[in-house]
Amino acid sequence: MVADSKTVESSPAISDLTSPVTILPSDHALLHPTIEIHRVGLPLKISSFQKFKYKLSEIFFSDDPFHRFKNQSVLRKWILGFQYMFPILQWLPSYTLQHLRSDLIAGLTIASLSIPQGISYAKLAYLPPVIGLYSSFVPPLIYTALGSSRHLGVGPVSIASLVMGSMLSETVSPTDEPLLYLRLALTATFFSGLFQTCLGLFRLGFIIDYLSKATLIGFMAGAAVIVSMQQLKGLLGIVHFAGKTQIIPVLSSVFHERREWSWQTIVMGFSFLLFLLTARLTGLKKPKLFWISAAAPLTSVVLSTLSVFIFRTSVSEISQIGTLPRGLNPSTINKLYFHGPHLGLAIKTGLITGILSLTEGIAVGRTFATLQNYQVDGNKEMIAIGLMNMAGSCSSCYITTGSFSRTAVNYNAGAKTAMSNIVMSSAVLVALLYLMPLFCYTPNVVLAAIIITAVIGLIDYNAAMRLYKIDKLDFLACLCSFFGVLFLSVQMGLTIAVGVSVFKILLQVTRPNTNIMGNIPGTQLYQCLSHYEKAQRVPSFLILGIGSPIYFANSTYLQERILRWVSEEEERIESKTATTLRCIILDMTAVTAIDTSGIDALRELKYTLNKRSLQLKLGKSEVLEEFSTSGLYLTVGEAIADISIAWKP
Amino acid sequence: MVADSKTVESSPAISDLTSPVTILPSDHALLHPTIEIHRVGLPLKISSFQKFKYKLSEIFFSDDPFHRFKNQSVLRKWILGFQYMFPILQWLPSYTLQHLRSDLIAGLTIASLSIPQGISYAKLAYLPPVIGLYSSFVPPLIYTALGSSRHLGVGPVSIASLVMGSMLSETVSPTDEPLLYLRLALTATFFSGLFQTCLGLFRLGFIIDYLSKATLIGFMAGAAVIVSMQQLKGLLGIVHFAGKTQIIPVLSSVFHERREWSWQTIVMGFSFLLFLLTARLTGLKKPKLFWISAAAPLTSVVLSTLSVFIFRTSVSEISQIGTLPRGLNPSTINKLYFHGPHLGLAIKTGLITGILSLTEGIAVGRTFATLQNYQVDGNKEMIAIGLMNMAGSCSSCYITTGSFSRTAVNYNAGAKTAMSNIVMSSAVLVALLYLMPLFCYTPNVVLAAIIITAVIGLIDYNAAMRLYKIDKLDFLACLCSFFGVLFLSVQMGLTIAVGVSVFKILLQVTRPNTNIMGNIPGTQLYQCLSHYEKAQRVPSFLILGIGSPIYFANSTYLQERILRWVSEEEERIESKTATTLRCIILDMTAVTAIDTSGIDALRELKYTLNKRSLQLKLGKSEVLEEFSTSGLYLTVGEAIADISIAWKP
Repeated sequence: MVADSKTVESSPAISDLTSPVTILPSDHALLHPTIEIHRVGLPLKISSFQKFKYKLSEIFFSDDPFHRFKNQSVLRKWILGFQYMFPILQWLPSYTLQHLRSDLIAGLTIASLSIPQGISYAKLAYLPPVIGLYSSFVPPLIYTALGSSRHLGVGPVSIASLVMGSMLSETVSPTDEPLLYLRLALTATFFSGLFQTCLGLFRLGFIIDYLSKATLIGFMAGAAVIVSMQQLKGLLGIVHFAGKTQIIPVLSSVFHERREWSWQTIVMGFSFLLFLLTARLTGLKKPKLFWISAAAPLTSVVLSTLSVFIFRTSVSEISQIGTLPRGLNPSTINKLYFHGPHLGLAIKTGLITGILSLTEGIAVGRTFATLQNYQVDGNKEMIAIGLMNMAGSCSSCYITTGSFSRTAVNYNAGAKTAMSNIVMSSAVLVALLYLMPLFCYTPNVVLAAIIITAVIGLIDYNAAMRLYKIDKLDFLACLCSFFGVLFLSVQMGLTIAVGVSVFKILLQVTRPNTNIMGNIPGTQLYQCLSHYEKAQRVPSFLILGIGSPIYFANSTYLQERILRWVSEEEERIESKTATTLRCIILDMTAVTAIDTSGIDALRELKYTLNKRSLQLKLGKSEVLEEFSTSGLYLTVGEAIADISIAWKP
Repeated sequence: MVADSKTVESSPAISDLTSPVTILPSDHALLHPTIEIHRVGLPLKISSFQKFKYKLSEIFFSDDPFHRFKNQSVLRKWILGFQYMFPILQWLPSYTLQHLRSDLIAGLTIASLSIPQGISYAKLAYLPPVIGLYSSFVPPLIYTALGSSRHLGVGPVSIASLVMGSMLSETVSPTDEPLLYLRLALTATFFSGLFQTCLGLFRLGFIIDYLSKATLIGFMAGAAVIVSMQQLKGLLGIVHFAGKTQIIPVLSSVFHERREWSWQTIVMGFSFLLFLLTARLTGLKKPKLFWISAAAPLTSVVLSTLSVFIFRTSVSEISQIGTLPRGLNPSTINKLYFHGPHLGLAIKTGLITGILSLTEGIAVGRTFATLQNYQVDGNKEMIAIGLMNMAGSCSSCYITTGSFSRTAVNYNAGAKTAMSNIVMSSAVLVALLYLMPLFCYTPNVVLAAIIITAVIGLIDYNAAMRLYKIDKLDFLACLCSFFGVLFLSVQMGLTIAVGVSVFKILLQVTRPNTNIMGNIPGTQLYQCLSHYEKAQRVPSFLILGIGSPIYFANSTYLQERILRWVSEEEERIESKTATTLRCIILDMTAVTAIDTSGIDALRELKYTLNKRSLQLKLGKSEVLEEFSTSGLYLTVGEAIADISIAWKP
């Protein structure tokens, strides 16, 4: 709270000065032996085209992707270019047998997770279970060639599946018109891939930054609750279930259809849920035992299938997956839906699921890259994920991205390169070719248990508590998107999340902080009075710190707020001391940018104040001439010293 | 360009130091006699409820409206409260005869302007001309009692009329269903008043700040061109005119219907247009002759009506207004449309015209208040304008606000108080009661000429050029909204204007400046290297200035950009000198706020850099503990001095 100094200077503090200030040259030297008045430098003259170019390059090429090509031979440039496009060319040449062994183990581990997950998530999107398996075969292969993350485990994810399912099923019933529904899902996947690729190509990756972490935490938690509620259908064996996703109709339908509850399903479901949750907890508590949580889903599928098969005559109540087609992904180019009344729906669904899956995929990629200290290129990841979805939509896959659970398992299992994705694909290939008949007796209830276990990890209670502690507004945003998803709809929740995020930025820009500053005795430092107890007001001066760049969105507010500070200060002085306010100094250190409205506001302020010397640091503009060099100082200390000298009688 | 110092210090500059730094205590004292290391003060502990309360009060009560009620007796509080609600109570008691004389002259002058304007703008909104006169009678009376501006001239304005007309006529034809159209216009006015009042009551006035001046300049200019093009119908005497507002269909319809051009109309129209434009120019060039431009519209109406009346047999080609009903505003409470298929349209139109007219009214009010050095209370103006529109919608008035042309004339004519609005109302009342039959022969072509003359002032070429000179991005935003209005539609143009404005804020927040800073030799000042030629790098240190608060929207960018600066610096050092980079100092002076994502980003950055001592100034959070006091300094100079001492061998 206190700005203590390690060594104390003996010269009197500037705040001891009384007004009107009378400083003789010698006094002045005594007060501040090192006080010099520096001329404020204007920015170097650069053409506005160059400025514009710099601005654009910061927006679109802030990562300087062409840096590596500088000063290279033509051949080398081609090689680097290919390596840039296909990161596999970077690591494949130096790939060793040791890498292969690690990747083999990791790949097989995520395969054991991804087969039951694929089937489950496809059901979440109201798609045939086999689509989920197809989606774990083609996209990982493409990502291996194009992606820049070494640990990303690619496949269907719960949030995107849920959103796609809930958006499409609002218009087209997946049970009444399964073919149309499938076509729309594939088309939405195509558009989401196209959108993702375009974002990457046009280097617009930064738009996913507008989804703040705080609102995402709320959205994810809300979606997890919604998904878990949906699983009550499978878990309780209910046949007639609510068509809506909101929590109220779902719960009321659960209790209205009590007669449909099947005790066999319930017993089986809850025992496997218990088993899966225990395995998950074990994996969380002891990271070395991650394989328990990784293997649990497949174990559950195998065990439940076996038990249903053995007791197949007496457990007819338990609904089962049924026959799955054997064979590789069939082509679905001719199934894409480019004409017709539902095209708009497909595009909209594609955009929303596209941006959601990008957000998840890139966040996951970045998280694990930080752990191993390498960088993931956001724009290139978008192209990789986008192309893999476009290719997927032509080969019976629905939307995929980097999945948190798979990536965590992949990382813990010791994956070294994206090769583990190829291993996983091969394992899925074997399953598609030979193991499909085995899933015939797999009960749906175990899939519901797998989904619940997976999405429970999305409820990040600790992160929400942390938000509450650090930033109440962030927490409020989090709550808004949580309850939006829960009580309105997934899309509304998402809209609220984006709206609140953007509104928060706007609010912070619209209402910047302004602080009265004072001198810390014995120094040339000027700090916020409310922040530093030792800081003291300088008589006759009002020093205001402006806390943000001045834009059109805050220029009016700042202008009025500064005038209010001035009148408050005048009232305070009137009641207490005999001095008068003679000069207002604006500390513009934090004003790193100013637009035309900001300049107008400063000009009007100067006109209104009709007072002396505002200290400014700003770019070229005629406003500089108005304030003239005498009104511009490099530091608050220099401004006070110079003005005090001018006030000598 | 250069930071010259007025007095030159003799001690060696810190940038002369070589690395590894060896500073003995005495050396250190010699180098910087006043260097002290200050402990960074944490913000005073205030409860998060208080913080939240402060934040909310800054958002909603930044003008401190309750300030005047402090320390007053109960009776005085009541009086002040009434005066706050009805500003007329503030100035009426001290109203003098001299004031009345000034206001009488000003009121009659704006009446002479507002009668022809009212008729013309009503036609712009496809409403019966008399509605425009009604709208100049009731709303000014209400504004006089409630408004806080002394010079605002209230009445219909061109932009809001145009937008209302183009939005409503897209769905409902004003010629085929005139009654329904009128009802929708009144209902839209009601909702716009309701919306404006709510904005004021809930103190959300700041949302109009999101429409940047730059985009408004473009929007206004585009709208002015569109309105002028629409007047070609009247000016050329065309009967079958394009139903759309975009420039291409309008121009093509003008040339397709060449047979309908009427030379009598054209001759009359262009002569009056010439007369009006000359009068306008005279008023602009010599502000003392403002009354010429103010009286010109009424003169034109009188002259044209007279000439049509005299030559009425031979000028049958020229279309005329026709009979106008005599009498006061009829009540239209029962005409408001609260049920039915077009309710949504009415609400939407109300919202958009409401926000547009607020923007115009408040900007005009503020501009003229600044000239006379008084303040206009934004939120109270919203309530006044909102209530006057709600009352207007019940008494045959369509949307009104503070009009730029009327206010300018009012101000120049020497108005002292809002009483001039009452004078204008009375003059309009006389016109409504006794002069209506005189308008029967008024030709429509002269109204078209009046509209063109009025809207031409909205094309602010100089402001656009100024934008081009100062800020290319602002100019681009201006062009976008200009061409959006011209080639798409008024609403699209407005959407683009808002979108570009918001996107500009987001972009500025997303891509803040980062600069390498250096020491100005002989001082403790650290400034941007590219800005100050004299500033020199400090060996072994990389000093980066962060140019904005750190939010979720820029935390990823900043993290990656800082890493890029570091690697670029390392490359530069490698190629040139033998020293190594040992410490990165972040100058957080401009980082006036940081959210949870920002803190996470700094933590990750610290983890990635795995280097020493980042200088930070930020609010309470656990990140502070991680950096510990040794990593936080009050100034860059102190950080360098302290770290250099620690490096002593």
